[in-house]
Amino acid sequence: MKTGIWLIGARGSIATVTMAGHAAVVRGLAPMTGFVSNREVFNGADLPPLEGFIFGGHELRRMSLKEVTSATLDACGVRRYPRAFEAELDAKLDAIDEDIRPGIALRVGPQVDSVANDIRAVATEREAIDAVRLDLDAFKAKHGLRRLVMINLASTEPSVSPKASWTSLAALEAALTANESGLPSSSLYAYAALAGGDAYINFTPSLGSRLPALEELALTRGAVHGGSDGKTGETLIKSVLAELFARRNLEILSWFGQNILGNEDGRVLDDPTHKATKIRSKDHLLPKILGYAPQTRVGIDYVESLGEWKIAWDHIHFAGFLGGRMSMQFTWSGCDSLLAAPLVLDLARFTALAQRREERGLLTALSSFFKDPMGVDEQRLVAQDEELVRWALGEPR
Amino acid sequence: MKTGIWLIGARGSIATVTMAGHAAVVRGLAPMTGFVSNREVFNGADLPPLEGFIFGGHELRRMSLKEVTSATLDACGVRRYPRAFEAELDAKLDAIDEDIRPGIALRVGPQVDSVANDIRAVATEREAIDAVRLDLDAFKAKHGLRRLVMINLASTEPSVSPKASWTSLAALEAALTANESGLPSSSLYAYAALAGGDAYINFTPSLGSRLPALEELALTRGAVHGGSDGKTGETLIKSVLAELFARRNLEILSWFGQNILGNEDGRVLDDPTHKATKIRSKDHLLPKILGYAPQTRVGIDYVESLGEWKIAWDHIHFAGFLGGRMSMQFTWSGCDSLLAAPLVLDLARFTALAQRREERGLLTALSSFFKDPMGVDEQRLVAQDEELVRWALGEPR
Amino acid sequence: MKTGIWLIGARGSIATVTMAGHAAVVRGLAPMTGFVSNREVFNGADLPPLEGFIFGGHELRRMSLKEVTSATLDACGVRRYPRAFEAELDAKLDAIDEDIRPGIALRVGPQVDSVANDIRAVATEREAIDAVRLDLDAFKAKHGLRRLVMINLASTEPSVSPKASWTSLAALEAALTANESGLPSSSLYAYAALAGGDAYINFTPSLGSRLPALEELALTRGAVHGGSDGKTGETLIKSVLAELFARRNLEILSWFGQNILGNEDGRVLDDPTHKATKIRSKDHLLPKILGYAPQTRVGIDYVESLGEWKIAWDHIHFAGFLGGRMSMQFTWSGCDSLLAAPLVLDLARFTALAQRREERGLLTALSSFFKDPMGVDEQRLVAQDEELVRWALGEPR
Amino acid sequence: MKTGIWLIGARGSIATVTMAGHAAVVRGLAPMTGFVSNREVFNGADLPPLEGFIFGGHELRRMSLKEVTSATLDACGVRRYPRAFEAELDAKLDAIDEDIRPGIALRVGPQVDSVANDIRAVATEREAIDAVRLDLDAFKAKHGLRRLVMINLASTEPSVSPKASWTSLAALEAALTANESGLPSSSLYAYAALAGGDAYINFTPSLGSRLPALEELALTRGAVHGGSDGKTGETLIKSVLAELFARRNLEILSWFGQNILGNEDGRVLDDPTHKATKIRSKDHLLPKILGYAPQTRVGIDYVESLGEWKIAWDHIHFAGFLGGRMSMQFTWSGCDSLLAAPLVLDLARFTALAQRREERGLLTALSSFFKDPMGVDEQRLVAQDEELVRWALGEPR
Repeated sequence: MKTGIWLIGARGSIATVTMAGHAAVVRGLAPMTGFVSNREVFNGADLPPLEGFIFGGHELRRMSLKEVTSATLDACGVRRYPRAFEAELDAKLDAIDEDIRPGIALRVGPQVDSVANDIRAVATEREAIDAVRLDLDAFKAKHGLRRLVMINLASTEPSVSPKASWTSLAALEAALTANESGLPSSSLYAYAALAGGDAYINFTPSLGSRLPALEELALTRGAVHGGSDGKTGETLIKSVLAELFARRNLEILSWFGQNILGNEDGRVLDDPTHKATKIRSKDHLLPKILGYAPQTRVGIDYVESLGEWKIAWDHIHFAGFLGGRMSMQFTWSGCDSLLAAPLVLDLARFTALAQRREERGLLTALSSFFKDPMGVDEQRLVAQDEELVRWALGEPR
Repeated sequence: MKTGIWLIGARGSIATVTMAGHAAVVRGLAPMTGFVSNREVFNGADLPPLEGFIFGGHELRRMSLKEVTSATLDACGVRRYPRAFEAELDAKLDAIDEDIRPGIALRVGPQVDSVANDIRAVATEREAIDAVRLDLDAFKAKHGLRRLVMINLASTEPSVSPKASWTSLAALEAALTANESGLPSSSLYAYAALAGGDAYINFTPSLGSRLPALEELALTRGAVHGGSDGKTGETLIKSVLAELFARRNLEILSWFGQNILGNEDGRVLDDPTHKATKIRSKDHLLPKILGYAPQTRVGIDYVESLGEWKIAWDHIHFAGFLGGRMSMQFTWSGCDSLLAAPLVLDLARFTALAQRREERGLLTALSSFFKDPMGVDEQRLVAQDEELVRWALGEPR
Repeated sequence: MKTGIWLIGARGSIATVTMAGHAAVVRGLAPMTGFVSNREVFNGADLPPLEGFIFGGHELRRMSLKEVTSATLDACGVRRYPRAFEAELDAKLDAIDEDIRPGIALRVGPQVDSVANDIRAVATEREAIDAVRLDLDAFKAKHGLRRLVMINLASTEPSVSPKASWTSLAALEAALTANESGLPSSSLYAYAALAGGDAYINFTPSLGSRLPALEELALTRGAVHGGSDGKTGETLIKSVLAELFARRNLEILSWFGQNILGNEDGRVLDDPTHKATKIRSKDHLLPKILGYAPQTRVGIDYVESLGEWKIAWDHIHFAGFLGGRMSMQFTWSGCDSLLAAPLVLDLARFTALAQRREERGLLTALSSFFKDPMGVDEQRLVAQDEELVRWALGEPR
Repeated sequence: MKTGIWLIGARGSIATVTMAGHAAVVRGLAPMTGFVSNREVFNGADLPPLEGFIFGGHELRRMSLKEVTSATLDACGVRRYPRAFEAELDAKLDAIDEDIRPGIALRVGPQVDSVANDIRAVATEREAIDAVRLDLDAFKAKHGLRRLVMINLASTEPSVSPKASWTSLAALEAALTANESGLPSSSLYAYAALAGGDAYINFTPSLGSRLPALEELALTRGAVHGGSDGKTGETLIKSVLAELFARRNLEILSWFGQNILGNEDGRVLDDPTHKATKIRSKDHLLPKILGYAPQTRVGIDYVESLGEWKIAWDHIHFAGFLGGRMSMQFTWSGCDSLLAAPLVLDLARFTALAQRREERGLLTALSSFFKDPMGVDEQRLVAQDEELVRWALGEPR
């Protein structure tokens, strides 16, 4: 059975690695390294196979998908396939390119505005939603899909202040009709997906479906959603180290983390209006794991020469017995897209499983994938992961 | 009720911080930072309070306990107490010094031989055991103790080849009678403790009670034992990071760890005959957690200027999706004695709990404390710790 | 012969270590580790000995000098002296405390304003200068000093925009008379010192004597001055590593540096108005050494738990042959006051030498001590240091 | 005019990057990044251009030069050239392959013996020399070369104990005639080159020309030689940092360096008989720069997954004023072959310059290129480099 995967930011780094990697795996040219869903423990979960995935999406930049894919893989230093496959991959990407539509660009922030050149012209919020919904329906019809999973991989939007109209579906509908919902694109996309019974997964820290009105919409239409902000690197490490310090009852005095990165994501985050959204997402989990709030700082800076690479340096200052002050430092050097892409495909598989099971509303079982999981207090990776296993295998909590 | 704590290596760095720290905690001058047993979850476990602890031990070096304690605390940069308490602490340590006896020194290795100057003269293995046992009985009688917990904090012994006589108690008894058991001091101490129904905990990678004959002895005499090799720093971090990589299905290509340290422990480990024992203990857990065996190396070098400090540098090389090669590095900078001392006191509390419950034989529930836990395959810290919680609270597995 | 050392920020961390360390060296209790002037090569330079130094200064905070000194030394983990010397040191510091006067506080920035509680009340810029000058003259008279060396160790001031009136002494005098020079305190102090023929050395990135009018004043009055911003840690390392990359013709792609620190200096720099001044000083030397301008960033963040310690992490991304991309990272972990204090005393010695030689105007030979040396393009440490040697020994260039 | 470059270890990583990189530079496809000789200061030195270089060499392993070159470039992550050039490069390498002869393999050590499969069969030391000399003469004749520069890039040989016969040319000749000189292959190669008036440069820590008898031979035959052990990474950094600490009079307490690497060089060095030679070379410069001998350690370990990459971690422990203990750490992550290849070509250019100037004997001016420069005490990079400049420009010292 086929599963539609609809990517917002479909020509961005993560999306390109997701689609190229998917093709390589399906052709048996790459192992499923980095896939949570490929662990033996999930053998009994009857997850949908990658073979049935069909890709489409929205994007704000006019570019050749196969060219940006090739550039991204090069920048990640990934070894190239046999020449025969390169041609096959290019053909596949060209075909997907046909299913990538101009995106909507409401409140996406100055750094995205400055590069967007393929925008769907819409006059109102409601028009934006309708345009997106039409694209989704056309894609489903073309490929004979019953449902799809929309996954937000677009650049981080600036934060927006919550509005009263977000707290119930009725209020939101009224606000949309008045074109004054204040929702950013990520949430309009979410609305469009959920309204049609499709799933919405937010891999970014943008607002997305994080408002009561959209949870209500999901429940009403029998749709599922989840997020937010994929946990791929520094925060992932942080989440297991913080648990270690907690279990050993060592006192964190301060935790300073600095990220430098060079891709489009980094360029956008270099703007303070975009950065604030990201930092909030990265910086909240320590107090939840530790039970107290040491001084923390998270820095993100754009260092262009790094290209697709992200380097993080964390300095952890802690006290032990008799107040003795000690420290741990780590550096993480990763290619974000390579780390994120398998998780995107994992999320698609688990979400499709939830769809098949006719679940509805927020998928809290996916918390291990996210820096800031909606509706979940548990921030410790091991516990989150075990919850995922239980849920996927249909075991009682 | 009083609990006797008998430390092998009683004037070593860990022992001194254990005793000084205990005194400070009991007087309300230091919080229980770094104590596992002080976590809220153990409130229901009815652990013996620190107030009832009485210390004694064996040691091979003639030194003033209060002087080495003061030097160790200084080297760890620990802030000093009010002057009034310093005098009180010195008096306490002088009193404990009275209960520290000359140790036995069979097969302790060249680096220990070279500094030992306070050795109990014994002609045979059996005499060594008897001498130790007499010291323990005298201590118990003097302080009115029913049982005690012996904890091995002595320098790492060279490895010894297993002997057939170690596989059963009967065979071991015969070998001891013939003075050809080949057991190192750590095991003779363990024999002496267990034979009298007392507990033996091995905080070092030396052989200790890790032989079937001594497990049989423990079961026979109603004694408990546990070990081995306290997990305080680099290996502790390794155990949680390895689980992270496993749960994310990232492939570890190689894991290189280098430790530099400057105290007596480091001086002894600098000798290859001693070092091999330690490295084996530090280097075995990755394959167990990962399910495959990447190339690993653990280096230990003595850098005298570091004094009580240990610095570890680990380089983790891993592959992600599409074979992309990434890396993580960490440095750990800790004062080993400050990290170990609360765990020693934790072990004393949990072991005393087992004694009160009339348990016997190997205490596998203590695995989270050890680099190389006897009788336990589980090497993941979180699972080990949760097992400790279950056991301590008397919950079913 | 006696030399007066007048410290601005006389109860700050650097000043306290300078004075306590001076006392310890003079009493033979501490070696001259960290002193440039103590290198054998300077034996022939006839530098004034430390024994003749007499300290005084200005400060904006009312505190006990001996108490803050003791706290600073503790925070740096410096080993304490014999008890006998502690009493002697306290007495010395109490005596110096008598010679510390309330400072002036014009344009010192919000973070300094918020803690200043011992301010000399003045109505105009001219009054501020006169008040300072009176304090200096009183100190010289009291101790029978012919000249003194004022050294600015105060918190970094916010940057100020240059004014036309700064370009000549005549224009500046007019502006001062009109009370509209716009000069920050650091420059008013410099004016006061130079006007009386005394030396002014700026160990901070504040404006100080960096304006043509004050150079003119120095030349007119036969005074010397130098600065600015003591080069003690990250920038020092940067200056030698950058030269290495230049000599090996490797191409720096980006250089990212992050500093975290916990003392009063860090607290002040955490405010953006103060921080900008510092970052400009730290970030300009790479293009001068390399001959081209790679992307650079310097971050400074306040991490309170670090106290007197500063940790810097630098990530250097470079290209080698065939465009191969490689990297170097370093972490620097230092106690700034311990690194700065001997340089302050060095600067006092070299400046006093210049005074004895009747030099006047800017002392460019001191460039090796500064992050942003006035009047000097050469940023390579070795060349700067060799210039210092030549000058000190009176050799031709 | 053409210059012959004869590489020992001609199919090793450094040699392949040297030859491929040379081809790319000559065709204008790669800039001269990493070349010392390309710095502007050498414009006046009239160095021989790369265009005239002709390559040949000896090698012990039968392999396709173009295939190992391609694998090495891939492993270094170097971006590939236009496809048109790849074919041209392959043709060039095939042509060079014709000029690579089976090497001699006396005392090359167990790790080299185990992979050598293309050995020139010789019965005696003298036969080995003659065989090499014949190859050199044939190469010169074929390409019409007056002189050549032999550069040793072969795997590090085990150390050998000096013999009395090495101290004079006469004694050495007698020992060679008796086939009991005890010289390793690196020295036999050096003899063969120098005997014919050709130059010998030792880029490895093997013995090479480091014996009085060979200096005598060079002087007699009008040949030049230099070495040893190319300074490409960790030691290079060490040499400038150590000078920094010396100029700031900070006291190094200990300096620990650990290298991990994954190529053939690493595989060979993993054997203790080979490793000792290397470590001696890396570990001697600190005392010379500092003027005292802190505790130092240099570790080298083979971590296969790293391939061509070398990671070094150094921990520098130092004392500042008042005995305050601080530290600096650095990690260096480089592709050794990319760093070494331009230096090999630099050495060829500078050596050819010396030949043109009819110099003879040891070229001490090349010290900046070597970890353990023969005949030179100066270990500080800046001073060494300035000496190179002076010599190259023909300026007086």
